[in-house]
Order: sequence, then structure tokens, then C-alpha cells
Amino acid sequence: MVGRRWSPEKMVFLSVGLVAETGRQNPPERDTARKRKTMANTTITAPRGFRAAAVKSGIKQSGDFDLGLIAADGICTAAGVFTTNKIVAPAVVVSRSHLRSGRAQAVFVNAGNANTCTGRRGEQDVQTICRTVARKVGAAAEDVLVCSTGVIGHYLPMARVRKGIGEAAGRLERTQRAGRELARAILTTDTRIKLSYREIEVGGRTVRVAGIAKGSGMIAPNMATMLAFITTDVGIGAALLQRALRKAADVSFNKVSVDSHTSTSDSALVLASGAAGNRPLSRAGIEYTCFAEALGGVCDDLARQIAADGEGARCVVTMRVTGAATAGEARAAVRAIADSPLVRTALHGADPNWGRIVSAVGYSGARFDPEALTCRIAGTVVYRRGRPSGFKAGALSEKMQGKDWSVEVDLGIGSKTDFCYTCDLSREYVTINADYHT
Amino acid sequence: MVGRRWSPEKMVFLSVGLVAETGRQNPPERDTARKRKTMANTTITAPRGFRAAAVKSGIKQSGDFDLGLIAADGICTAAGVFTTNKIVAPAVVVSRSHLRSGRAQAVFVNAGNANTCTGRRGEQDVQTICRTVARKVGAAAEDVLVCSTGVIGHYLPMARVRKGIGEAAGRLERTQRAGRELARAILTTDTRIKLSYREIEVGGRTVRVAGIAKGSGMIAPNMATMLAFITTDVGIGAALLQRALRKAADVSFNKVSVDSHTSTSDSALVLASGAAGNRPLSRAGIEYTCFAEALGGVCDDLARQIAADGEGARCVVTMRVTGAATAGEARAAVRAIADSPLVRTALHGADPNWGRIVSAVGYSGARFDPEALTCRIAGTVVYRRGRPSGFKAGALSEKMQGKDWSVEVDLGIGSKTDFCYTCDLSREYVTINADYHT
Repeated sequence: MVGRRWSPEKMVFLSVGLVAETGRQNPPERDTARKRKTMANTTITAPRGFRAAAVKSGIKQSGDFDLGLIAADGICTAAGVFTTNKIVAPAVVVSRSHLRSGRAQAVFVNAGNANTCTGRRGEQDVQTICRTVARKVGAAAEDVLVCSTGVIGHYLPMARVRKGIGEAAGRLERTQRAGRELARAILTTDTRIKLSYREIEVGGRTVRVAGIAKGSGMIAPNMATMLAFITTDVGIGAALLQRALRKAADVSFNKVSVDSHTSTSDSALVLASGAAGNRPLSRAGIEYTCFAEALGGVCDDLARQIAADGEGARCVVTMRVTGAATAGEARAAVRAIADSPLVRTALHGADPNWGRIVSAVGYSGARFDPEALTCRIAGTVVYRRGRPSGFKAGALSEKMQGKDWSVEVDLGIGSKTDFCYTCDLSREYVTINADYHT
Repeated sequence: MVGRRWSPEKMVFLSVGLVAETGRQNPPERDTARKRKTMANTTITAPRGFRAAAVKSGIKQSGDFDLGLIAADGICTAAGVFTTNKIVAPAVVVSRSHLRSGRAQAVFVNAGNANTCTGRRGEQDVQTICRTVARKVGAAAEDVLVCSTGVIGHYLPMARVRKGIGEAAGRLERTQRAGRELARAILTTDTRIKLSYREIEVGGRTVRVAGIAKGSGMIAPNMATMLAFITTDVGIGAALLQRALRKAADVSFNKVSVDSHTSTSDSALVLASGAAGNRPLSRAGIEYTCFAEALGGVCDDLARQIAADGEGARCVVTMRVTGAATAGEARAAVRAIADSPLVRTALHGADPNWGRIVSAVGYSGARFDPEALTCRIAGTVVYRRGRPSGFKAGALSEKMQGKDWSVEVDLGIGSKTDFCYTCDLSREYVTINADYHT
């Protein structure tokens, strides 16, 4: 299986059905403003047992929402996956440590300042945040998780942060509005909020899984590669929840590459309140599989939304490699293609330049059969068994002007596959990152 | 030693002096047009025993020079290094095979069509080229080397190629004009010709070493990464010449990264005519060292010119890593920094964004001491022993607007070093590569 898609048939067969699903085609904020009133809540406040709030604390120079809280009614089972960068934000150090207990009750997040490379003072600021949040929401400091994203090397403006926490704690709500404002507060250069939602039945109870994410820049597949927050009201043991999240992240967040630069703050967190009332999942049976699929679907949705909203991106492209000798070689080939600026500028130009794709495979280190090597762009075979196929470049270029398509390369010597989600490299990416001054 | 620079003191000490040196600040073609008449010949026709010619054969759509020949008066000692891409042009296959003899007499080159992924017919076309050139210049087909650069997946227009070879063979000259026209014929998206020249004394005789190169796009450090042609009139054994070229390429051409995409056609060739009349070098003594330094200087010049003329580049930046535990980790760190689009857009914006540099080290896999990690941009310490240094961003940004400066990172745990030459990532790079349609 390439690309973890939700499979309705499988769900029905397991007698644990999907009740509702949203995400993937999440339109920009403005388009849905009118519709919002009539829509059911599918934000992270939809699972039972969670409230959220976001405020404009003044950390972002734009004055937009930039600080938020998720507060659970009681202790939740919790799990997280984090960046593999050796330089990490103090928020990552503290959240990783707090998660060793397998539980959490609140999440603090801010955008605009990553609080990375800020030394001892940065660590103390995170401890202060945990204590302040804990006091305001009635939890223990060790049950607070912290995520910060934004510029590196600057201290957090703690007066604003403290004030913001107080304000947010006073505005915690279970509403859709609160959920959407939080989704907006975590953004940096993202152009739209990223939401995903699933409802399933587990043990006769309706279980809700909701997620939000931010992405855009400094995105490479090496653990979470961005921020994601997932709430669910399923009852589940901590080890099982961590296992489900790790597995879901490996085939979703870890498959997104915008610019092959792994951030110092990447975090994906899940809190499970147990408020759905199902008998808590404690082993990997059918009900766990059903929940894990829903969690995987939410993560996959969010990952694709991150790729589609990569800095300056015009299109999201799924790169697939099949026929590799080993999983490692499949991954090496897919990464070489997705990380090549020459390939990614060709995607931007809607140019079916298979030479750049095939030559990237050539230096990837993956073995392949030159006489079997085949490449397909947006459904059209452009290179078949080691030879150009003689396709119609004009017609294919038109297909490549679409927003969502794939590139597939068959190495022709084995059965291993891998994939990743990437986007085109545009002048706008350069503008955003050359002009984003420290 | 980081960066293989020519050292005059050392030369004098060895009693084998440098007579002349050009390169590095090679201005665009038009600026030197007037001066040319009065300048001594420092092109690849300057070493004794070589003639060259270039013609406008019609392979390039622009109608510019696109096909050239280098012809030696007799059999030369020859050496070459080639791309490590597993997909290679037929020209690479044939040239590599012909060089096993350690000799060559002529080089054919064309730009505008790489003749890669063209199967059996592509290979036959290269054989035809060898036979045609051999007949026209009076050499054996096995003593002809071939290099092609340009688009992938198109057959060479052999009628034009045959006609071009005939024309070029009829115009072979020892003049500076011929040398410069050949330097121009090998260019693709390069904006200027790349020349370098050294004169040294070996065994009481003046020895000349001259080189030309093309670079610009599809440039990554994995063997030669571009085309380079070097002529010299030194007398030298084939094994020693290959050793000198390999060593020089490793610290010059293999240190250039424009876009981390290794080409299928990279080749660096050197032909030594022996016409200087020195007793042929056969062992690695002082005279060999002197020649190897001159060859290294020519390769280093050309490598820096390639980085400076990277597609859309505004500046050439030398990335240096010191204090690494192993050579492999030094290389991994320097590559992670140089290959990051986030770092390279910051270079473009003249933004002293040390956070991107330090975080790239963090995911490079190289070990470092977080409490010793230090980063210097254009001579200014921006991050000292794990902390921001409080530098003046405005003044530093002005220095970064220069054309040639360096970034240095000290990992603080060992003594291994590495470096590479790279350039900024600009909107123009995207424009060139998104609009360069197949």
C-alpha cells in the first residue's frame, strides 16, 4: 500500500464503521466564513472532554492570533513524536520529558517565536509557561505540554506570554470558533488553516478524532516535520496510543518534504480523553485497528494539506517509487527525486522533464534495472523500460498544471515501495525565505 | 588546509617557480573583447602541442558556438574523472573506456544536447563521432574522447554534428581566439566563460597548464559535477597524471554544489603533450608536487568560477566546517548546510540567519558539542559556544551583499575539516529551471 488512505470497505468489513470524515479539501479561511454557522463542529473541540482558546498576544508582528491553549476536563492518555534534529527547542525537551508519564491535560502553543538556541533562560521560560498554564486550568505542571514555532534565537516575550495565557484560560470553549481560532494561532507562513476530522464507532460508542497542523517551511521527513495537535475521546492505553501515533506519523508527517530542512521544533501530539465511554483499548485488536486507521487518516489529511500549503507552492505532488530492492533504497530514491531543486522547479513549470527525475534516481544510491526503469508523470508514461516513450508534452503539461497529481518511478528490480508528498519550488518560496529577515 | 589555494612561497622554496597565473576574476566575455589583442594567450591553446576550434553547428537553438575540438599534435598522456551517477551519457561510457590506455589525442565536445538516455542509438552516435573526428584530425578512433552536455533524452542531430566536425577540423588553430571560442562552445546556461592558467618551471623547462570549464546547473559534489578540459605541455606518466587529476578534482570540482543534483555527463579531462621538453615525470617527487599544485590551482580556479556562475547566483560562498570528529561528519555537516534551500535563500537575501545554519548542522548527522558550537558569517561571529553573539545585523548584511565570502561552523569536538563552494538560491534559479522546457 502506498499512501495511507482511509478505506471504507475495510471499515465495514470490520463492523466498526466510519460515521463522518472531513479534511483534505480544506478551503482557505475566507471561503468558509459564511458556511461555518451551519456546519457541525469538526475541530479539535469536537471530541468530548476538550476546550480550546486562542488569543492575539502580540508575539506575531502581524497582530494575528498567536497563542493558544487546549485544556482537557481531566487527565488524558497522551503520546507524542518529535523532531530528530539534535538541536531542539526547550519546548521539545520539556514536552518529551512530560510525556514519559503517558499522560497530559493541557497544551500550550505559540507561533512567531520558536524559543530555540536560547540556552538556560529559554528552558526556564518553558517551565514558567507550564506552571502558569497549570495554575490557570487547574492541572499539574507536569501534565502541560508546550510547542513553540517561529524565529530561532530570540527569547520569548514572557510578559506577553503570561498575559496571553491568562486571557486564553478565561476564554476556553468547546465551540467550533475556538477550535478554528486555535488552528489559526499556530500558523506561521501558512496561507490556510489545516483541519481533519473522523468519527468512527468503537465498542458501540461514537469516537471522534480531530487534528490541526501547521507546516509551510523548514519541512523535511525526519519525524514530525511540523506541529500537529490531535484530540480524541477514545479510551486507550498510553503505550497503544504512542504506537498508533508513531505508525501514523511514519506514513504521513514523515512523508512530507517541502525543503528538506528538518526543523528544531517539530512535534505531533495526541490527547485521548476517554470521554467516548468505550471500554479502554488495551491491545491491538480489531477495535484498535479501527481507531488507528482513523488516526492515520487524520494524520494523512494533515500531511497532504501541509504539502499543498508549502511555502510558495502551486501544487502538491505525491512521489512514488516502486520496484526497489530494499525499503531503504526505495526511500533513498524517493528522497533524491523530491529533494532535487531541478525536479521541483520542473514541477513548478509544469514541465514533464523526466530526465531530471531519472537522473536523480541515478545518483540516489538505489539500485535499479536500466532496461526496466519506468517513469510516469500525472498518469502518463514518459519513460518506459529505459527509453523515452514519445508522449505528447503539451497535453501532459496541461495535466501538470493541476493542483494534485503524482510522479511514479518503477526501479524494476524488487518489490519495495515508498512515497512522499512534496510541492513545487517557486519564485515565491525564494521571496518568502530571502526576505524573511532575522 | 581548507581550500586548495596556490602558494607562491612554497613554490619558491622548492626552486620551481610560478611564472604566470590567471583566472578567478575572469570577467564576462564582452568586457575583455577590446583587451584581448594585447593579452598573451592563456587559453587551452597556450600549452605547446595543442590546437582548438569551435563552430556554430546549430545544436543550440540560440545559434551560438556549440561544438568544438581539441586536437594535439601527437599522442598525449591523458587522464579523466567522471560522474558517479549510475545513469551516464554514452559519451561518458566511451571516454572512460578510451582512457584505460592512459592516452588520447583529441577531444570532441558539444553543448545543447547531452545525448543521455538515448539507448543503443546514442552509443552508436558517439562511436560515429569518434571515427569522424579521428579521420579529420589524423588520429585513431580510440584516442578520441567525447563530452556532451545539454538536454536529456534527445538524439544528437548527427548530420549537423558531422558537418560541424568537418568545419571545426578545418579551423583548428593555436590562437587565443580559438581557445576562447571553445570555452564558449561548451557553455549551457552559464553567463560567462571560465578560464584558468598557470606557468611553472619543471626541470628547467617552462610548463603551461590551462583549463576551461562549464557549470551552472545540475551541480553537486560527486565527482566532476561539470565539464572541464585541461591541457598541459608537461611530460608525465599516465598513472601519475591520473593521480594528480583525481587529487585536484577531489578538492575543487567535487566541492562545488549549486543544486545538489549530480549530472549524468560530468567529466574532467586532462591531456599532457610533453612538448615542454622536461624529462617526463614518473614519480611523486618535488617536480611532480610542483606540477600537481599548478593543476590543483587551475581546478580550484575553475571550481570557484563555476560556483560564482551558478544559475541565478549573486554570490559565491565558501562553506567551511571545522572541529568535526571524523572526515565523513565534516562532509555531512558541510553538505547539509550547503544543500539547504532555507540557508541558500538566506544567502540570497544577505540575511545573517544563523538559526538556519545551526539547525542544518543539527539534522546533518554530524556530532557536535552544543556548548562549543560556533558560527561565523563573512568574518563575523554570529553564534558563539551555543549562544547568539549579539552582532550588528545591519552591518553584517552589508558585508553579505559582497560577491565572495564564507560561512564557517566549528563543531567543537574534533580536528577534521571540510569545505565546499556554493552560491545563493534566487528567483532567477527558479525562473531558469521552471521555464527551461524539455
